[in-house]
This record gives sequence, structure tokens and C-alpha cells, in this order.
Amino acid sequence: MTTTTAPTAASADAADSGKQLSLIDCDVHNAFSSPDEIARYLPKYFRQRGLSLPGRAGFSSPLGVARADAVPDEGGKPGSSIAKMREQLIDAYNMDYVILTGGGILSCGVHAEADYGAAVARAYNEWFAEKWLDADPRMLGSLLVAPNNPAEAVKEIRRIGGHERLVQVIMTSATRTALGDRFYWPIYEAACEMGMPVAVHPGAESTGIANTFAPGFPASYFEWHSNLSQNYMGQVSSLISRGVFCEFPQLKFVCIEGGIGWAPHLMWRLDKNWKSLRATTPWLTRPPSEYLVEHIRFTTQPIEEPEKKDHLLQILDMVHAEKTVMFSSDYPHWDNDCPVHGLPKLPEPLKQRIMWQNAAELYNLKPR
Amino acid sequence: MTTTTAPTAASADAADSGKQLSLIDCDVHNAFSSPDEIARYLPKYFRQRGLSLPGRAGFSSPLGVARADAVPDEGGKPGSSIAKMREQLIDAYNMDYVILTGGGILSCGVHAEADYGAAVARAYNEWFAEKWLDADPRMLGSLLVAPNNPAEAVKEIRRIGGHERLVQVIMTSATRTALGDRFYWPIYEAACEMGMPVAVHPGAESTGIANTFAPGFPASYFEWHSNLSQNYMGQVSSLISRGVFCEFPQLKFVCIEGGIGWAPHLMWRLDKNWKSLRATTPWLTRPPSEYLVEHIRFTTQPIEEPEKKDHLLQILDMVHAEKTVMFSSDYPHWDNDCPVHGLPKLPEPLKQRIMWQNAAELYNLKPR
Repeated sequence: MTTTTAPTAASADAADSGKQLSLIDCDVHNAFSSPDEIARYLPKYFRQRGLSLPGRAGFSSPLGVARADAVPDEGGKPGSSIAKMREQLIDAYNMDYVILTGGGILSCGVHAEADYGAAVARAYNEWFAEKWLDADPRMLGSLLVAPNNPAEAVKEIRRIGGHERLVQVIMTSATRTALGDRFYWPIYEAACEMGMPVAVHPGAESTGIANTFAPGFPASYFEWHSNLSQNYMGQVSSLISRGVFCEFPQLKFVCIEGGIGWAPHLMWRLDKNWKSLRATTPWLTRPPSEYLVEHIRFTTQPIEEPEKKDHLLQILDMVHAEKTVMFSSDYPHWDNDCPVHGLPKLPEPLKQRIMWQNAAELYNLKPR
Repeated sequence: MTTTTAPTAASADAADSGKQLSLIDCDVHNAFSSPDEIARYLPKYFRQRGLSLPGRAGFSSPLGVARADAVPDEGGKPGSSIAKMREQLIDAYNMDYVILTGGGILSCGVHAEADYGAAVARAYNEWFAEKWLDADPRMLGSLLVAPNNPAEAVKEIRRIGGHERLVQVIMTSATRTALGDRFYWPIYEAACEMGMPVAVHPGAESTGIANTFAPGFPASYFEWHSNLSQNYMGQVSSLISRGVFCEFPQLKFVCIEGGIGWAPHLMWRLDKNWKSLRATTPWLTRPPSEYLVEHIRFTTQPIEEPEKKDHLLQILDMVHAEKTVMFSSDYPHWDNDCPVHGLPKLPEPLKQRIMWQNAAELYNLKPR
């Protein structure tokens, strides 16, 4: 296990250059203001229908999903203005890097028509390349794929995965078959070829071809949002138990916006079951929790906020946060976290790991 | 919040009588050895097809689900012999009471034919009444219902719920619609009329009409078993958020065999979302975690077993175990816990709460 005090490659590089990283934000939502911005990049056959994505079963947040004060001065959607994002986030908090994760687009991965879903992902990437990729050296991008169409996802990763500012593959965390399924393995293979982590982000759960939650459909946005972490538990469980990290030992998997507090339970439950049932998973040569700590990364927002601050520190200890947890603001969403006040007071070495070091190591980021 | 040291009604009664409770086991599986034992109680129309319950998608535990040494001397299934259960469990550990929870029968609640499922539940109850109900004053029963047929479940609860040795309603934790759904409210109403808690037990997840897990079907017994707790999280989330405990303030809900370590995350996530979204759940006048601590009870087996024992004690503190957690052995299943060695060393007041006091209060049990 990496200790919290040992110098890392990233910090050593920083010391060499005389510069220091101090803050990397791993979940920032860049938006398009109109569906036509994306649709114009669709191939002709699909372009005539425009951008058409799966929707939820009727419920929605009464607050909307974006901060009202993040609407750009010139109008449009929160997250659509490069200037506003600099002003409210990157400059305001002197961030070294932000990882852009898109917005309102991930559900292309649970579109019933897999070729349309893949075409939307590619169109989004082309729009992103034109508008965002060269906008600011502090803004890094995520390469969008539709996991329901692995063959097209692989082509897309090989097409543009080499761009230095595209630092990860991203896809919806909602699926019809769990992400450990061999169906998706070509995506992981291509990501590893490009040296990219694979990230998932919630939002499309219970839409399109995605399953709903095990007990049944949620009845409100409140219930839906509270349930999202269960899906993450199942995804991590399937990735580990089906041997994805044995086949792809370089693969890192980023669980964005799924919470953290469930991970200790899952680690212990997997380990306990593995002790009894390891004959059924002979590819797992170590306790499952070790694969989790080595291969899974969590972003902080929405971090749990127990009444007793010690409880959160205990959870962070249980999940080996010094290795697994990375700060995210989720700007400009309604429940976004401020880098200064979003987290409780942490011991300084752990704080550095969370606020920048873990992300710098994962994405191989150095001071500019 | 009840403190861990204050005298309780049950302990005061015990002191009065000069006797003391010391151990109540909240999950013990009584079994039938042959499907015909149950089928003979089915009405004629259904009897001809025998006992026919939903099965899993192919995977199974290579260990089976029962202790090999629990096979009765005269043959038959583990858990089917009253004498063996006394010898290996009740007498061996000098238990005051055991709560019998059935075995191999709960999936009647996710049978596609709701009337057949309800008929099976009633047949099981009649078999139970004949074989188990008067067998031993230390053996207490659970009244089985098929939640996919609330009208018949209500009839069954009113028919026999008054029996003093039937201490709770039990049903499958696997469902097609979450247990907070108004579809099930008549069951809760009837249980409250009879003063009975409602318990759920896993086993039927991903079978029959039950949904599979959010990410998709599990690919092994190992993955399936590790995922069961997610279903519990969704059930608890739906029960609280849809106001079941506001409508039925007397209702207690027992989560058997679902683990405990996920509960802190759920409590905090629900509370955090409630703070932002409470306008959408105006019936919740207190933070959701308070409903959880008041209305939800957890049984211990399979308790999480972190490498650091302190981590489990921290989790027990987070979930207010002095009020919410009750010992269970899960005898005679493969992963059953011994009352002596199954739990780590606990502070004495907490140990008493878990080993008998919480169960004595829930089920209104006194020394005999």
C-alpha cells in the first residue's frame, strides 16, 4: 500500500521543476446549450432525427440539476461557457487541472439503437474537440464511448485516444449487463493500449435499456439519486469477480459521483465470500479488496456528510483513501462541492493525496 | 436514542422474575426435506402440480447452502430435524429463543402466478403449524406471505397472525417493485394490526419476477451473494422515502442476512439528499436516518469481517447497533455464525443489546 507520506513520481517531478500542483478537480461538467450543437456532427443518416436520448420514468429534481448562478452571461446552459467556468471554478480556486466529463450525453450508452448511441458519442467527441480541447491547457477531456456498442467504442478510442489532453475514456455507469461482462472487454483492452483509465458517471440509471435498481423503479428523484451507489457496487463487484483486472492489470477504473461510504462493506463482503468461494474464481489470486484498492478510484462529490466528522475519517481510512480517493467538485451541478468547504478538515498528507496527488498519478499530470 | 446502559422493559421483567435472557437467535432455518411435505397442503387445484418455485439463472454455490454435518441422523435436509436443531444449536448454546425463518420457500413471493405463490405461502404456514409451532417453546415462527399477492397476504396475516409463537411476518427481499410501493401497504397495515414486525430474507434475488441487480445479472453465486445487500439498500431507501413509516409509525422492518456495513452510507446519503430535496417528500418530518434507526433492524450474519476489528466497531457505532442490530446464526447454512466466535469482542453493554435485548424488545420476549 502506498503510504501517505512517501514522495511520489508526480511530487518529485514537481519538486524538480520548482512548481507544485495543489488542486485537480476530477468531475467538471462542460455542457452544450442546444442539441443541435451535437447533432450537426452526426452522420447524415442519423442527423435528420437530431439528438434523441432516453429519458427517466417521469420524476425529476425540482431544483433542476445546475446551479442557477452558473448560467453564462450571454445565456445558454450552465457549463457551456469556457469563460464562466474559468471565472467560477478554475481561476476562483486556482486549479491546476480540471477533468471535463461532459453533460447530458452519457445516456447515449443505453440507447436502444446501439449504432445511433455510438454515433452520438462520436459526434460529442468531435464537438468537444472543436470547442473545448484546445480552449485552456488546464482543461482536460474525457473520450466518450457508448458501452452498448463495444466495437464502435474501440474504434473511437483508437481514433482519438492518443490526444494528450484526452485523459480517460468515459461512459455511463448504467448498463443492461454488468461492466464485468466479457461484452465490454474490448473497450478495456483498447483503453489499456492507449494508457487511459476508464471512468463511469451516473445519470442514465433506469433509462433506456439500462436495468432499474434491484428492488424496482425508484419513485422520485430523491430515491433515484439515493440509489445510484448501489449500481456502482454492482459494477465494481462484477469487474473484480469476473477477472477484468486480472486480464487487464494496467486498467484503472474511476467511479465518479457514486459516493464512497459503501466501499468498505463491499470490500469486506467480497473478501469474506472469496475466502469460502474462491474455488469458483480461481483467477483471483488475492483478496478482492486488494484489486479494489489497486484498480478503483473514487471521486469525492457527493461525499458523505455524517453528523460526526470522525465517521467520515474512519470511512476514508477503511477505503484507503490515500490511494483511492480524488477530489471532485461536480461543477456546475446543483449539489456541487467547493474545494475549500466541501470536505471536512483532513490530515495534511491525506488532504494532498485527495486534492491532487492521486489524480496526478492516475492521469500522469505534472505542473505546467 | 436508547442508551446502551439504561434498563429496558425486557431486562426489568427479567430481573423481576429472577431469570435472565442471554441469547436470542434471529435467523434459524427450519427445512422441509421433500417438496411433497408442503405440496400436500396446497388446495386441490394447485396440488397436482406440486411445489414449483422459481430458480436462479444457472449458477449455484459449489458448497451447497447447508452444513454437511447438519444432516439429521435419520436423513433428510439440514434444518429438518427438531432434535438435531436442539442438539447443534439451541441446547449447544443454551439459547433462550430462536426465530425460525423457513428455508427454500421464500421465492413463492416472486412466483409469476400470484395466486399460486400465495397458496404456497399458506401451505407452508399450515405445514409449519403442524410440525414446528408446538415443538419447543424456545422455537418461534415467522408467518410467511407472498408479497406479490397483498390481498392474500393480508388474509393470511389475519388468519393466523394472532398465534403467540408467530412473532413476525416474513417474505422475500426480492421484488419486482420496491417494498415502499403502495402495492404492499395493506401487508404493513395488517402486520401492524397484529403487532408484528415484517421481516425480509434474501435468496430469491434475480429469480422469478424479481428484478436483477441494477448493473445486470450476476455471473456467479459469489457475485450474486456479494450483491444481495444492494437490494436491501434499495428496499430500505424506498420504505423510508415513500413514507411507509409515516403511515405506519408502529411498523418495524427486519433486514435479515443483508449485512450492516452499507447502512451508514445509506443513512448519510438519504440525509444529505433530504436536506436538498425535502420539498419532494414533505411527509418526512425528520432526517431519513432517524426513521432508519427507529424502524429498521438488522441481523448479524453474515457480519462484515474487516481485517481491523476496530473498523467493525466503528460501523456498529455508525448504525446505532445498540438499537438496530440483533444476533443471528443462520443455522444450518454453510456460512452460519457461532454465537461464541461469530462476532468480534464487543463492549459488554453493546454485546447484550445485540445478543438478546434488541430482539427481546422487538419480539416482546421474556424469560420463560
